[in-house]
Amino acid sequence: MNAVTVTSEKSTMVFEHETPAQRVLFGAGRAAQNLTAEVGRLGATAVMVIAATESELAQKICAGLDIAVLFDAVAPHVPVDIAERAREVAAEHRIDLLVSIGGGSTTGLAKAVALTTGIPIVAVPTTYAGSEATNVWGVTEAARKTTGVDARVLPTTVIYDATCMLTLPGDLAVASGLNALAHGVDAMWAPRADPINRALAAESIGALARGMRAISADSTDLAGHEQSLYGAYLSAVSFASAGSGMHHKICHVLGGAYNLPHAQTHAIVLPHVLSFNAASAPESARRIAAALDSDDAVCGLESLRRDVHAPTALREIGLDEANLAEAVELIMPVIPPSNPRPVTAQALSTLLRNAWSGADAEYMRM
Amino acid sequence: MNAVTVTSEKSTMVFEHETPAQRVLFGAGRAAQNLTAEVGRLGATAVMVIAATESELAQKICAGLDIAVLFDAVAPHVPVDIAERAREVAAEHRIDLLVSIGGGSTTGLAKAVALTTGIPIVAVPTTYAGSEATNVWGVTEAARKTTGVDARVLPTTVIYDATCMLTLPGDLAVASGLNALAHGVDAMWAPRADPINRALAAESIGALARGMRAISADSTDLAGHEQSLYGAYLSAVSFASAGSGMHHKICHVLGGAYNLPHAQTHAIVLPHVLSFNAASAPESARRIAAALDSDDAVCGLESLRRDVHAPTALREIGLDEANLAEAVELIMPVIPPSNPRPVTAQALSTLLRNAWSGADAEYMRM
Repeated sequence: MNAVTVTSEKSTMVFEHETPAQRVLFGAGRAAQNLTAEVGRLGATAVMVIAATESELAQKICAGLDIAVLFDAVAPHVPVDIAERAREVAAEHRIDLLVSIGGGSTTGLAKAVALTTGIPIVAVPTTYAGSEATNVWGVTEAARKTTGVDARVLPTTVIYDATCMLTLPGDLAVASGLNALAHGVDAMWAPRADPINRALAAESIGALARGMRAISADSTDLAGHEQSLYGAYLSAVSFASAGSGMHHKICHVLGGAYNLPHAQTHAIVLPHVLSFNAASAPESARRIAAALDSDDAVCGLESLRRDVHAPTALREIGLDEANLAEAVELIMPVIPPSNPRPVTAQALSTLLRNAWSGADAEYMRM
Repeated sequence: MNAVTVTSEKSTMVFEHETPAQRVLFGAGRAAQNLTAEVGRLGATAVMVIAATESELAQKICAGLDIAVLFDAVAPHVPVDIAERAREVAAEHRIDLLVSIGGGSTTGLAKAVALTTGIPIVAVPTTYAGSEATNVWGVTEAARKTTGVDARVLPTTVIYDATCMLTLPGDLAVASGLNALAHGVDAMWAPRADPINRALAAESIGALARGMRAISADSTDLAGHEQSLYGAYLSAVSFASAGSGMHHKICHVLGGAYNLPHAQTHAIVLPHVLSFNAASAPESARRIAAALDSDDAVCGLESLRRDVHAPTALREIGLDEANLAEAVELIMPVIPPSNPRPVTAQALSTLLRNAWSGADAEYMRM
């Protein structure tokens, strides 16, 4: 054949995209019926439900299920001794399906069991954390969190029911939604970012913005929670595929080293990272702006943050000014080389100080 | 717990979405290296390549592979006797991986083998047909095509290389691209359409529009082929998930009953169906318009069709006026009940006559 000369300047798309299999059942007020039907479809004979005891929601959702065992010792960050105990209980009862009903810690415990046993998970999320859509697991031992990636921990099926969100306090819903929004924004330029991730991330950002505005105005707005759940799902899908970008590396360090609250940290840092990267990632910035129904990505995000009364300063959530210099040193080595704009220690220092004081994110544009 | 009353008016999202697992390797000029690496990753020991003999492209792509057998008896619509022979050859050689290199008929033959044997497929597409992204199979016996859906026929991995498209004649590339565009548009309102399908479909429409305009201006434009391949992939993903809508039901009947050319039939009918449905599916129309960079979906599609010199009249591709009445009778029973606008025989008759004569699709708005 004639040799085809590929001019690399004209070739713009090179990527690998792995789409994992997952089934989503979405419908307000349908969690119980969808769960019963799904357990039947999967042919499970011994179901272990993982949910905090106090969860009346979980009891209602499981009303139609034949449960072998309820495991209710859920704790934040999945302590390894609890994970071990849950694995033992699963083995004792010859469990063949895990049903998790709860937020990130509950889903995380189910993942810890799936990791070593291969038992499939049906997840019913009750926050916007997004863990149900990722293959990332984590357990904590002696205050150290170990995380990893394994196909076995990705839930087989996710059941979304916006009525599960109606009891979430408005400020927590907004913080959780902004945390989800950060998944979508960071997926634009994370190490494995590709056009498919960006398309799903853009869709998620639009849905989360609509949903959070509605929830902020009325925390019982069901359609608002539906949009937010839908957005949280796709933001987690895109994030799981693209990996952690600059924003998540910063927040991971801040959260781990200074014990800052997770969702609020994300909510505060995000506009500064977006402002820093936007001009160096014009296509991503254009998509984010369009998703936020704005001419400009940074202005669109700041407008959303004002509308939902998002937190604005790290100093107000427990970060000491004296820690800023150390934070820069801890963060610099983990900034992904793929970040669209090179990150200097000086720039990162300015960014962190702005996020600490609550300065306008516009300063990061330069 | 307090009973939560769900007001159905406020609940807008009810759907089931099944995402099948698939791996995509995308890169111009990389098919050979990606294929070699993927065969190694999958640990295949006996590879059967399915490709038309004349395909020098296939030879080049397979240059680095250790091939157990090359099956080159590819024919349109996958005749069942050829499928049987291919299955026998696969069994004789204890094949554990099928590699298809070609258009829809080649991918279709690999699927026919996978259907009965469960052997995984790595597909290297050379048109915009999109079969590589669907779980739909079809074989033909005595001029009757049997189709079905089976998870085993979805290729494990798809390798996209835009340089494979450079030898496709410009008018064929445009017709194939418009056929792909129809997947994305019809996915907006097909029976299993959901927000995720619509998001992927919108992304596909934008990429195909950009790609086809570039190819139409210069059939060797590599970036244009990349955009088109990317769009064709996502349009097929969304179509496979959403199912056949009104447009595909019409084209399937016309193609089968009157032996019209596949891609051209789609290219001609699409604007009429879009014009018919747009006002009854405002959110889909808004998304299509935005993807086409236009204020209006129908105007945007007509503008694209003019730019790429798309065919405009069924009478010019072999449909006899005398068949129109019969066509209406054949099509009416298969129009999906989910179509956003109810379809009367009178309306369908007007639509078909407009598509037959090449009238402006605007007439279908009413």
